Amino acid sequence: MSGIFGENIKVSIFGESHGGGIGVTLHGLPSGVALDMEAISREMARRAPGGSPLSTARSEADEPEILSGFFNGFTTGTPLTALIRNRDTRSRDYAQLQDTVRPGHADYTGAVRYAGFQDYRGGGHFSGRITAPLVFAGAVCKQILKRKGVVIGAHILSIHAVQDRALEIETCTEQILAGFAGQELPVLDAQAGAAMREAILEAKKQGDSVGGVIECAAVGLAAGIGDPFFDSVESVLSHILFAIPGVKGVAFGGGFAMASQRGSQCNDPFYYDGQGRVRTRTNVNGGVNGGITNGMPLCFQVACRPTASIAKEQDTVSLEKKQPAKLIVHGRHDPCIVPRAVPVVEAAAAIAILDMMGGRRA
Amino acid sequence: MSGIFGENIKVSIFGESHGGGIGVTLHGLPSGVALDMEAISREMARRAPGGSPLSTARSEADEPEILSGFFNGFTTGTPLTALIRNRDTRSRDYAQLQDTVRPGHADYTGAVRYAGFQDYRGGGHFSGRITAPLVFAGAVCKQILKRKGVVIGAHILSIHAVQDRALEIETCTEQILAGFAGQELPVLDAQAGAAMREAILEAKKQGDSVGGVIECAAVGLAAGIGDPFFDSVESVLSHILFAIPGVKGVAFGGGFAMASQRGSQCNDPFYYDGQGRVRTRTNVNGGVNGGITNGMPLCFQVACRPTASIAKEQDTVSLEKKQPAKLIVHGRHDPCIVPRAVPVVEAAAAIAILDMMGGRRA
Amino acid sequence: MSGIFGENIKVSIFGESHGGGIGVTLHGLPSGVALDMEAISREMARRAPGGSPLSTARSEADEPEILSGFFNGFTTGTPLTALIRNRDTRSRDYAQLQDTVRPGHADYTGAVRYAGFQDYRGGGHFSGRITAPLVFAGAVCKQILKRKGVVIGAHILSIHAVQDRALEIETCTEQILAGFAGQELPVLDAQAGAAMREAILEAKKQGDSVGGVIECAAVGLAAGIGDPFFDSVESVLSHILFAIPGVKGVAFGGGFAMASQRGSQCNDPFYYDGQGRVRTRTNVNGGVNGGITNGMPLCFQVACRPTASIAKEQDTVSLEKKQPAKLIVHGRHDPCIVPRAVPVVEAAAAIAILDMMGGRRA
Amino acid sequence: MSGIFGENIKVSIFGESHGGGIGVTLHGLPSGVALDMEAISREMARRAPGGSPLSTARSEADEPEILSGFFNGFTTGTPLTALIRNRDTRSRDYAQLQDTVRPGHADYTGAVRYAGFQDYRGGGHFSGRITAPLVFAGAVCKQILKRKGVVIGAHILSIHAVQDRALEIETCTEQILAGFAGQELPVLDAQAGAAMREAILEAKKQGDSVGGVIECAAVGLAAGIGDPFFDSVESVLSHILFAIPGVKGVAFGGGFAMASQRGSQCNDPFYYDGQGRVRTRTNVNGGVNGGITNGMPLCFQVACRPTASIAKEQDTVSLEKKQPAKLIVHGRHDPCIVPRAVPVVEAAAAIAILDMMGGRRA
Repeated sequence: MSGIFGENIKVSIFGESHGGGIGVTLHGLPSGVALDMEAISREMARRAPGGSPLSTARSEADEPEILSGFFNGFTTGTPLTALIRNRDTRSRDYAQLQDTVRPGHADYTGAVRYAGFQDYRGGGHFSGRITAPLVFAGAVCKQILKRKGVVIGAHILSIHAVQDRALEIETCTEQILAGFAGQELPVLDAQAGAAMREAILEAKKQGDSVGGVIECAAVGLAAGIGDPFFDSVESVLSHILFAIPGVKGVAFGGGFAMASQRGSQCNDPFYYDGQGRVRTRTNVNGGVNGGITNGMPLCFQVACRPTASIAKEQDTVSLEKKQPAKLIVHGRHDPCIVPRAVPVVEAAAAIAILDMMGGRRA
Repeated sequence: MSGIFGENIKVSIFGESHGGGIGVTLHGLPSGVALDMEAISREMARRAPGGSPLSTARSEADEPEILSGFFNGFTTGTPLTALIRNRDTRSRDYAQLQDTVRPGHADYTGAVRYAGFQDYRGGGHFSGRITAPLVFAGAVCKQILKRKGVVIGAHILSIHAVQDRALEIETCTEQILAGFAGQELPVLDAQAGAAMREAILEAKKQGDSVGGVIECAAVGLAAGIGDPFFDSVESVLSHILFAIPGVKGVAFGGGFAMASQRGSQCNDPFYYDGQGRVRTRTNVNGGVNGGITNGMPLCFQVACRPTASIAKEQDTVSLEKKQPAKLIVHGRHDPCIVPRAVPVVEAAAAIAILDMMGGRRA
Repeated sequence: MSGIFGENIKVSIFGESHGGGIGVTLHGLPSGVALDMEAISREMARRAPGGSPLSTARSEADEPEILSGFFNGFTTGTPLTALIRNRDTRSRDYAQLQDTVRPGHADYTGAVRYAGFQDYRGGGHFSGRITAPLVFAGAVCKQILKRKGVVIGAHILSIHAVQDRALEIETCTEQILAGFAGQELPVLDAQAGAAMREAILEAKKQGDSVGGVIECAAVGLAAGIGDPFFDSVESVLSHILFAIPGVKGVAFGGGFAMASQRGSQCNDPFYYDGQGRVRTRTNVNGGVNGGITNGMPLCFQVACRPTASIAKEQDTVSLEKKQPAKLIVHGRHDPCIVPRAVPVVEAAAAIAILDMMGGRRA
Repeated sequence: MSGIFGENIKVSIFGESHGGGIGVTLHGLPSGVALDMEAISREMARRAPGGSPLSTARSEADEPEILSGFFNGFTTGTPLTALIRNRDTRSRDYAQLQDTVRPGHADYTGAVRYAGFQDYRGGGHFSGRITAPLVFAGAVCKQILKRKGVVIGAHILSIHAVQDRALEIETCTEQILAGFAGQELPVLDAQAGAAMREAILEAKKQGDSVGGVIECAAVGLAAGIGDPFFDSVESVLSHILFAIPGVKGVAFGGGFAMASQRGSQCNDPFYYDGQGRVRTRTNVNGGVNGGITNGMPLCFQVACRPTASIAKEQDTVSLEKKQPAKLIVHGRHDPCIVPRAVPVVEAAAAIAILDMMGGRRA
């Protein structure tokens, strides 16, 4: 319900963009996991704003304070809570949006859902800022997964009209292990990255925004994970991925392209590799057969819409006056959320995968 | 977990393709709902096999027996259970598949997940047959939704290379209300339907199969439904949609196409209509802003992969001998699951939407 | 919610006393468990009516049909469903009770809760009959627990004014393993059993009923089971125990008597036994410290109220006429539910304990 | 699981006695509820230590900071989080207890459950201190319930051998509304209160502790609340009540005494009162028939064991040396937790009742 995700790991999230703080409690973690706090900070920094002309000018250090569940350098197994204070808040930017709702944003729907009592400052609970505690939770889960040989990595597959290369079955494990994090825009093809940068800055210059697709893979997963009927791997992953603000599409393996193919092209024939393991020659199904992992890299794509907050004048309504209104959104916004969404997608995947693996019993 | 879906409505599903029966229990239904049993039978018939050269030759009447929760023509409010017996089962077709696993299917992953104890006959719990109780549950939810003015309808947007027209904002309510159910292939453009029929039969003739995309819409929904952060409308719907066997992609509104657009194209400007209601001029966001319905038609697409069971010879492995094997799948299979998946998608959507509306408190 | 219990094992129950059937689906069972069907039948027979002058004259064989999740003699790991048909139903006995509600029973509260649409025949969903599928589910869980060295047994601690001996720390394991099931009234002190029999028959003769207390223990549990804060061992067990119709009190170890004691009497000092295991010299805490098992026998008591359906004339109301009414309950009722509740308490405990041990991951 | 309770309201709790802080997130609250922060502080003060010679000398202001979900004086409907910092922590008192575990406490079981990684300082997550956020959550729920006409109140029914009068059907509503909060020991009979005080101080003087029973009632509840089979009113309430550290028994209405009665004494005959409402002449069933409220006061008793931490020398073991050990618990402890548990019981009841009423849809 609302702020809680998971069956074995339960992640409980809270906070608004301009309130006292945002945070997360993780229930069901194993005890005795040494947490690398620097690795967590690096993940937080990947998502944090202010590092680049490609993102909002809002600057937040996003240093999490662990309040519970962590003692002498190890997880205790009891609920682990992290709090991130909101610091660089300029609430004056947002007062108008309570009435003159931003098209494409949750201003109107949140006002209906919460009968006008929602914290509207900076998008409140609907702000992309709420993904910061998600990244914290994901960073913890990633460290637990890493000990089990599971590594998750994502890159930008496209921004606006610019395409990166797709992950390939032969090389993706190596690519994931190497990581894309060092790049301002994590891509396989550096030229595509440069063109994406241009596309974002061009949109920004025009007071507009652009969308994109993130491709993510988890490697090292055993076969046999997933709980059909209702908790297929795709079901659990898509549930948390669609919680990320701005995500409008999720696809596994060949995804929508499979719909225009033949079965003989999509079946990923099995073979035994040299070590007696069952593998597939292709990976059109993205590592999942019948809702259960087959031991191949788990691959999926996430479509992000262009940022709703744009500087161009837009048609909207005044809820109070019940009449048409014009709106130019001021304040500081990302011209493209895709680069900052990359670590969020990885974090969401890490949470869902650890959950499916059984949480503390993983 | 595994066989249960929902927060307010809880749907508990069970059964294997060739076992004693398949069925479903619905918890959390309102009491006092008169059920139109003929309408339920019509929904079951839409999904049932045997009606067309486009589907498997297996013939199942799929008549549900209601065991509980229904008294004197009305729901009681206590758990409602329906049982569907399996009748036309030819288990001999499947014995080989326990060892020589079908590529693209759950034979291998199920064997790993359940340590070889799964009922492998006819796909067992992974058979598309398990969607029959889902259609029953959806048919019950549809009737409850209809009283609240919510109607759900789906059509085939594409099969292989053949495209139907997409739903349009001006006409889709009318189209949904009219229903597509009368057609063998529910489409907007009859010519496209004929071409789809050809594409399916052509694949069948070649011992192959084809995939497709289903487009679905729910009209009549109030604004304000959905529970972000984790239970966004997209999250809850995608969770159940990805449980349907063969689904590999789910997208809302413009979906993946939004990723190559600008914010100014995707924001769906608000206006007040003549009756003082907030509407949007376009519906690129598919009726959802920030994870909450905005009162416009809720639109999404579901990508179905081609049926995994094909008659062509395929490379696979023998799990027992731990060596390569060749496989030709005999038995009766759909050359394209898309037509029969249409009522399943509608049913899944009906369950998820009634759940989000609050189940018995809706 | 309503008909579902558990976190790791999820038990979904359905049915009414006089409907098409009652049953249960177990989700989250391990695969590969050979089920001893005769042992299950014996458990069902312990609860089934008709075997004794101490119980209702209604006679039900209560033979469960397993519909799914069981193949070639083993659990499959997918949802396991059992159906029990209702056969000896005399619905005419109950028609009057829809209006002239029985004091102490759910006739009135069910009518309010379900707005008059509940199946009122024979208590409908509120009938003690719904404990039959619970016993089935518990019998399955018991077999899984037994392989892990956990055995559960219960006896009648008191009926009306007659007391049996309480379980003792030195002997209870032996007593549990020996089982009480062979006795018509499972007790430690045969004389107490005879006196209980008299008390029940005396109440029956007077058209009245009596209550009693059941004492139950689980032996062989490891230390370290339980998930405080909210899912203490006591919380999870009491949740399912209070679902049994007629249960009005649950206590662990010394229970209410501990409230009138001193800490120095209640602390169960630790010691190491010969095999290097931590044990306690007494077991006032019933095997639970801080909501987590300590490896000693898990002991608890369950207080059952006297059967509400009595043959004596009672004051009540007519809901239709909104005026006082007199009621004599006809039909067939147990003068004391305690004897038949013994296997139900054991079953409930088995379900809760297997759930706390992690279900399929136990 | 572990730190989360509820279906409609979900309460997520975290913290350890000597960590960074303790707190709670409430999911599923209605929006637009004005919170009386002074009333919340008064509830916190009732539980807080340091106010009396009857409780521990540890002094904590326990001022909650609301981090989210509260804006301009009203609940927003999004997750509401409160944080309470730990201040007066003397961790040196506890270092020894990691090895020489306290009998009757969770030191040993927690060490097993969390493999030695638990925060052992001050009982860590098992400390009674974790009930402070529960009281906060309950105080919020109480305010919501009060607007719906539901008021909850508890008094001390007994401490050691001293008995207070029990609540009576004619007067309990008045007594609950008047509140017992003003008294150091909330009782009906002031003389009993004085004797209880003596009993506590006498135990304290002897380095020992005493237990007691709390009686609680909720008045103003409508008939028809509760979700059998598994979520009977008794099930849901007992689940949260048994989470309170030290609770070993829960009983409704006549409770265990009903086990030695006849049905004719326990059936609470119905009548219509002057306003056309169904009432019962007695309330032996504590306001619950068949797991559903009947509109009478909901009454239950909670048995609390004597505080496990006593100053007397006790036999225990050294986990490290695997040998017997003697223990004298130093530090500051309550000689009786019952007085401070009274507001905790009320809080737990408020959470459970609001949850059963439907949370934000109540």
